[in-house]
Amino acid sequence: MVNEEKNEMVVTPWEVKGKVDYERLIKEFGTQPLTDELLEKLTKYTGELHPQLRRKLFFSHRDLDTVLNLYDKGLKFVLYTGRGPSGPVHIGHLVPWIFTKHLQEKFKTRLYFQMTDDEKFVVEDELKLEETTKYAYENALDLIALGFEPEDTFIIFDVQDIHLLYDIALEVAKRITYSTAKATFGFQDSTNIGWIFWPAIQAVPCFIHAKLTGENVPALIPAAIDQDPYWRVTRDVAQKLGYYKPAQIHCRFLPGLGIGGKMSASEPETSIFTTDSPESVKRKIWNAFTGGKGTATEQRKTGAEPNICTIFQYYYYLFEESDKKLTEKERRCRNGEILCGECKMDLAERVNRFLAEHQKKREKARKIVEKFHIKH
Amino acid sequence: MVNEEKNEMVVTPWEVKGKVDYERLIKEFGTQPLTDELLEKLTKYTGELHPQLRRKLFFSHRDLDTVLNLYDKGLKFVLYTGRGPSGPVHIGHLVPWIFTKHLQEKFKTRLYFQMTDDEKFVVEDELKLEETTKYAYENALDLIALGFEPEDTFIIFDVQDIHLLYDIALEVAKRITYSTAKATFGFQDSTNIGWIFWPAIQAVPCFIHAKLTGENVPALIPAAIDQDPYWRVTRDVAQKLGYYKPAQIHCRFLPGLGIGGKMSASEPETSIFTTDSPESVKRKIWNAFTGGKGTATEQRKTGAEPNICTIFQYYYYLFEESDKKLTEKERRCRNGEILCGECKMDLAERVNRFLAEHQKKREKARKIVEKFHIKH
Repeated sequence: MVNEEKNEMVVTPWEVKGKVDYERLIKEFGTQPLTDELLEKLTKYTGELHPQLRRKLFFSHRDLDTVLNLYDKGLKFVLYTGRGPSGPVHIGHLVPWIFTKHLQEKFKTRLYFQMTDDEKFVVEDELKLEETTKYAYENALDLIALGFEPEDTFIIFDVQDIHLLYDIALEVAKRITYSTAKATFGFQDSTNIGWIFWPAIQAVPCFIHAKLTGENVPALIPAAIDQDPYWRVTRDVAQKLGYYKPAQIHCRFLPGLGIGGKMSASEPETSIFTTDSPESVKRKIWNAFTGGKGTATEQRKTGAEPNICTIFQYYYYLFEESDKKLTEKERRCRNGEILCGECKMDLAERVNRFLAEHQKKREKARKIVEKFHIKH
Repeated sequence: MVNEEKNEMVVTPWEVKGKVDYERLIKEFGTQPLTDELLEKLTKYTGELHPQLRRKLFFSHRDLDTVLNLYDKGLKFVLYTGRGPSGPVHIGHLVPWIFTKHLQEKFKTRLYFQMTDDEKFVVEDELKLEETTKYAYENALDLIALGFEPEDTFIIFDVQDIHLLYDIALEVAKRITYSTAKATFGFQDSTNIGWIFWPAIQAVPCFIHAKLTGENVPALIPAAIDQDPYWRVTRDVAQKLGYYKPAQIHCRFLPGLGIGGKMSASEPETSIFTTDSPESVKRKIWNAFTGGKGTATEQRKTGAEPNICTIFQYYYYLFEESDKKLTEKERRCRNGEILCGECKMDLAERVNRFLAEHQKKREKARKIVEKFHIKH
């Protein structure tokens, strides 16, 4: 049984727990839902609707319409997303990256990708700076393995590239009071001063394109919605500095294999990491929380509940691209025509097939990572 | 007449006003007075007591005794001081630099000199980053003009050299809570987050020698006492990071030419800048506040008051090295044997002689400034 109190929703850039109510987040964060009309406008450029849009994994935005209108008038945009390298990458992290790659391909535009080794160091008590910088490098391999264009992909390693970021960060930081930062991020007296400054660093890639190229264009940020507080602050500062407000397109969190919440590196048995062995993947999926019944007989009779099943979510998010096949799977599950064991084994096989390929590409990426490193 | 309320003492790293009570600062800041015993110990290495020590311009310290004891046992130290480049350098700024050069010569030790263009940008509302970085360069010329050893003098330009500072700054920042920073520096809700982070950057040169050379040695910081809050925080963090606590030796502020307070670039007519023309120097000195009487006749009869005279302070701080001649000047002033005009003209001549030489060296410094820039 889920403890209702413990299951209360918390969504901040540093913590996501409880059952996430995405409609409520749109209201509380003051973002816009991704309407069918806007999605249709998007297909004008992309030709087809990406599965993640079709399935509403991306569900909310700020100023996507503005960016597309400017694009119509000939003003390009850049993409910006990132990763807090506090550990290995899990499959949930790949979701917005895969969508970002789709946008890069369709719009032929530059991506700035920020590896926030500095943030993770000041935020996580137990992490050393050597660890977060090491994870930054390792996590970059996962990004590159997805097939981004080296000419158009600029990975920023915060600590190593701070000389490119610091002047803009100072401009931003000067315009954010402690009062604003406290209200936005919930800082307290016990928060360290590195963490308090850090939102200024996360703002920089929104504006760095102008510094590097002289072109003042907006940034479009595909990312999970927990990052939204950063952009609220950044948007306030942007126009004071003569830049466009950054636009966002927000995605959901891939649920973990346990009950509720997002897949989290801090609960390794409920997350599938990109470097997991086939045996680990099988074990984790085998132990996953499903919508199945107590016995096979009962399930054959009454059917199972895909709506609460973490295995079904995996098919939905990444491992069954065909809407038709997904609907059929859901129907068979509800009717008790398929049992959880079969469904789990099928998923484990698909995940392992994907990871075998990904791990090969990931190792090859070691040789080309410098091609993706932002130019100095 | 001095308004007693307005003349209340305020001494923070960003503001010094009112009549400064140095005895009270020692008590309030919790520093140690420079005792005759300690000064005597110092002469073991320096051979003679520098005029600034003889005249108690340096009057307080933290751990100077510890640093000298370690030195006795063969452990060297490095010097560290700096400048907030918010405008041109005035003569008051040169006081601790001249003393620092003396220490560098006598102990043959390395100096790290921090130009805090980042700090002045986030602290001063009206300053642009281009301005503080320009002043950083211009101010460095004044430092170099004093004759520091290029091999042993490492100027850090914060914005330009941030890649050398950032990792250590993060280590420091992680260990300073907002609560501590607020209590130490008086930060408020309206303070910007760049300013709040900045104390971590000022701490870095205390520890950078170990990073650059592998030698873990203490830093000795000669600086005006208003900077002490930084070192209190830095000392707390130092040992957690495996470094020596930085030691300090604190000096007074050279009074301005007006009534009370330190010489301040924000009141240009009460400060003599190193780039002032001879005419400006004459005018500013001519208009200075003295301890003279209403009429020459009265002054001849009752004498003047050198203890409240800003002109006398200039002789005392920098422009009369001979104690004997200074005492004689003081006696003649008290006895009405010398009038203010004569004393002012004499000082203006000395200052202009000094500045003519300084300005020549300052221009030559443009060609060699890179020799003093910290190596990357």
